[in-house]
Amino acid sequence: VQTENLTLMTDFYQLTMMQGYYQNNLADKKAVFDLFCRVNPMGGGYMICAGIEQAVRYIENLRVSEQDAEYLRSLGVFDPNFLNELKNIRFTGEIYAIPEGSVMFAAEPVLRVKARLIEAQFVETALLNIINHQSLIATKAARVCYAAGQDAVLEFGLRRAQGPDAGIYGARAAIIGGCNATSNCLAGRMFGAAIKGTHGHSWVMAFDDEYTAFKAYADSFKDSLTLLADTYDTLKSGVPNAIKIFKEKREKDELPEHYGIRLDSGDLAYLSKKARKMLDDAGFENATITASGDLDEYLIQTLKLQGAKIDIWGVGTNLITSLDCPSLGGVYKLSAIETSDGDFRPKLKLSDNPDKITTPGVKKIYRFYDKETGKIKADLISLEDETFREDRDLTIFDPKATWRKMPLKANTYTIRDLLEPVILNGKTVFKPKTLSELREYCRAELDSLWDEYKRLINPHILPVDLSLKLFNLKEKLMNA
Amino acid sequence: VQTENLTLMTDFYQLTMMQGYYQNNLADKKAVFDLFCRVNPMGGGYMICAGIEQAVRYIENLRVSEQDAEYLRSLGVFDPNFLNELKNIRFTGEIYAIPEGSVMFAAEPVLRVKARLIEAQFVETALLNIINHQSLIATKAARVCYAAGQDAVLEFGLRRAQGPDAGIYGARAAIIGGCNATSNCLAGRMFGAAIKGTHGHSWVMAFDDEYTAFKAYADSFKDSLTLLADTYDTLKSGVPNAIKIFKEKREKDELPEHYGIRLDSGDLAYLSKKARKMLDDAGFENATITASGDLDEYLIQTLKLQGAKIDIWGVGTNLITSLDCPSLGGVYKLSAIETSDGDFRPKLKLSDNPDKITTPGVKKIYRFYDKETGKIKADLISLEDETFREDRDLTIFDPKATWRKMPLKANTYTIRDLLEPVILNGKTVFKPKTLSELREYCRAELDSLWDEYKRLINPHILPVDLSLKLFNLKEKLMNA
Repeated sequence: VQTENLTLMTDFYQLTMMQGYYQNNLADKKAVFDLFCRVNPMGGGYMICAGIEQAVRYIENLRVSEQDAEYLRSLGVFDPNFLNELKNIRFTGEIYAIPEGSVMFAAEPVLRVKARLIEAQFVETALLNIINHQSLIATKAARVCYAAGQDAVLEFGLRRAQGPDAGIYGARAAIIGGCNATSNCLAGRMFGAAIKGTHGHSWVMAFDDEYTAFKAYADSFKDSLTLLADTYDTLKSGVPNAIKIFKEKREKDELPEHYGIRLDSGDLAYLSKKARKMLDDAGFENATITASGDLDEYLIQTLKLQGAKIDIWGVGTNLITSLDCPSLGGVYKLSAIETSDGDFRPKLKLSDNPDKITTPGVKKIYRFYDKETGKIKADLISLEDETFREDRDLTIFDPKATWRKMPLKANTYTIRDLLEPVILNGKTVFKPKTLSELREYCRAELDSLWDEYKRLINPHILPVDLSLKLFNLKEKLMNA
Repeated sequence: VQTENLTLMTDFYQLTMMQGYYQNNLADKKAVFDLFCRVNPMGGGYMICAGIEQAVRYIENLRVSEQDAEYLRSLGVFDPNFLNELKNIRFTGEIYAIPEGSVMFAAEPVLRVKARLIEAQFVETALLNIINHQSLIATKAARVCYAAGQDAVLEFGLRRAQGPDAGIYGARAAIIGGCNATSNCLAGRMFGAAIKGTHGHSWVMAFDDEYTAFKAYADSFKDSLTLLADTYDTLKSGVPNAIKIFKEKREKDELPEHYGIRLDSGDLAYLSKKARKMLDDAGFENATITASGDLDEYLIQTLKLQGAKIDIWGVGTNLITSLDCPSLGGVYKLSAIETSDGDFRPKLKLSDNPDKITTPGVKKIYRFYDKETGKIKADLISLEDETFREDRDLTIFDPKATWRKMPLKANTYTIRDLLEPVILNGKTVFKPKTLSELREYCRAELDSLWDEYKRLINPHILPVDLSLKLFNLKEKLMNA
């Protein structure tokens, strides 16, 4: 939980490089870095941007404390002049970001940082950590919620998260990505997230028998009643005992509006169908069935295909850790550096692996929507000084296969400039949104993608093209 | 970073259950919970215990603030009397733990919590979160270091960790598990972890050419010099430029004791062998080759088998997120509850899945070592009141296959009582160790395991047996 200042949460080599820049009179040169992912994670077709608010707060709080400086001094590798400089460093540059909750794609800069080289280098590691984590979990949550369709999804992963922050900020990201609520009370308090939960196995075990435990629970909570049915035997004991309680409550006209059972083990398709029939036969058609236990988007999709009668999905470990892809491969690469005459010289990192070659220059992202459907047609990365007009014909092309062209007819599309300023001249211009606003925004963003791009496996890939000017610049530098 | 109080970092259902216990006069009943894993992770044969110190600190700080209580009140589901009770809750019970850095196995209680039911329930989620995370990463690190043999392993994962805590406490756990150092400066400051790092690609790109960048770096850092060789072309540019710098420094007698190159992309076996030859041919046999880039225990083992000439392994994403197994499945289960006459009644949770049936009673873990070799022969879980003597013959047996017996001959073995008190009557008796003490202790612990148990894939499984008395108790309750 980030009330401690995270300024020192950086890789050691950032500090050695910073000292080197300082000693080589490069510290004040302005530099531009892009934070981006090289591939969409989980074999999917998109990502959800998350963590922008925490990234901004981190930047605002960037400040080497006396204690930090003392620690660095004790390492014996830093020059006292540099350490003095370090104590005075604040972030004075600018950051543009893709708005939190947006759909985004590989190769697009989520953050574009322009600052003194020494500052831009300082913030690399923490920005990557924050954006990689939250965007990963928001993306996973969007996939899980896509699989669940209209059903509610609850985030239950705190106990298996990779430490406190992973649980807390993971819950935040999961709700941005579409989850209805979390079990994590601290995320509730910190972000206003909706929180949910009823009781666990220990409740049932703390009483002499299951019926007594259910009855005590029902008597304690009048507004909402979900009984965990699998402590002893789901169909022989748990569901019948739950039905007994529901009947007693119905007789006294005390059955709450929201009531039902939760299944946490066994075969969820089989058990939910059997339990549904038992509940319906007893006249409890409104009772909900919540399921939990090793769920993820793939299992939810399969269970639904098999006709599982599950209304609410409690998703824990596999969401909060993003089991099949536990990291987003975000990188932070230099794309331009100030020249002695104050211009920016575009920079490119070569690699034997073509996917690892960076795209040079100070860049923007334009998103093209079909005017009629409102769906995204393509994204285009351009240089900062390029503009495009909706009333002109435009043909864009795939930079990896230049014969793959997409013609855009004048007045059939709309254009959106995706990067927004969040920090200018070191001052925050970012306007935070509430978590429920972010969730609503994200839902609308996902609606702007055709289903084909949201398929869990082997989706259609949205074109992320380069403008002709940027393509030519990259070609020139690659062949230089 | 846990300076904020984590008391509210709990699943909502813990609070509803607590209110239920309070209203049903069960809150003050003493209960015993075991925190344990059902399987060893990553297909391996053991785990490393980590996170005990943070778990103890969390317990010490357990305290519902006015702000927390106000938030809970705002939810409208809690009774004011319960909220008053909650504000006064402190942890007054006892916790026994496996010492941090120990080798441990599935089914063994890492923590045994005995406390008022309301307190024991309160701390479940956070204890699981902390122990699951750090033990996972310590275990992964032990595997990576096992694969690396005598070579140094550096933890480089901060930028891909699942949030700040995952990076910070993950670095701590990685060092307990055997890593030599981390790149994470905050982990250095907080825990005294050794920190390492030199420069990245952006350093090279900030200069007009690679040679100039290397030279500037070498001039800035006199004590240690590792040059990143893959920004443009490893064998045609990076290694020759590094050799040029090393020669210049050697001529001036300024070559530091620790110097070398780092490879971060391309085929590490091929490139390291070629680079080694180039360095050796130039007379730099002492130059080290550090490798990084998507490494894990499996890749390290394969690269070594193929004769890669790598001296130092920088392991990032796949260690800090435990790629192939990003969570430890630790659970927290009620094993006994106080009766009206003050005794403890053992409790058992049944399940259709035999591996999910819990082991009842207040338990201890005894570890049996071979007297001659000092290696672990077996662990035995017994009831708390059972003792064993080293001068007696003893036969233990596998509870899942009772015909599999292990005879232990008197005076050929030593016995260790593995669980140690960390909190008694709400007071901390835990004695923290430094990170380097924990790392040394863990190394000795790993030495007490034969190699067969440490094989990365399909290892031999160490017996974790139940005492006859405990076995009979479990059988009785299962058939009750």
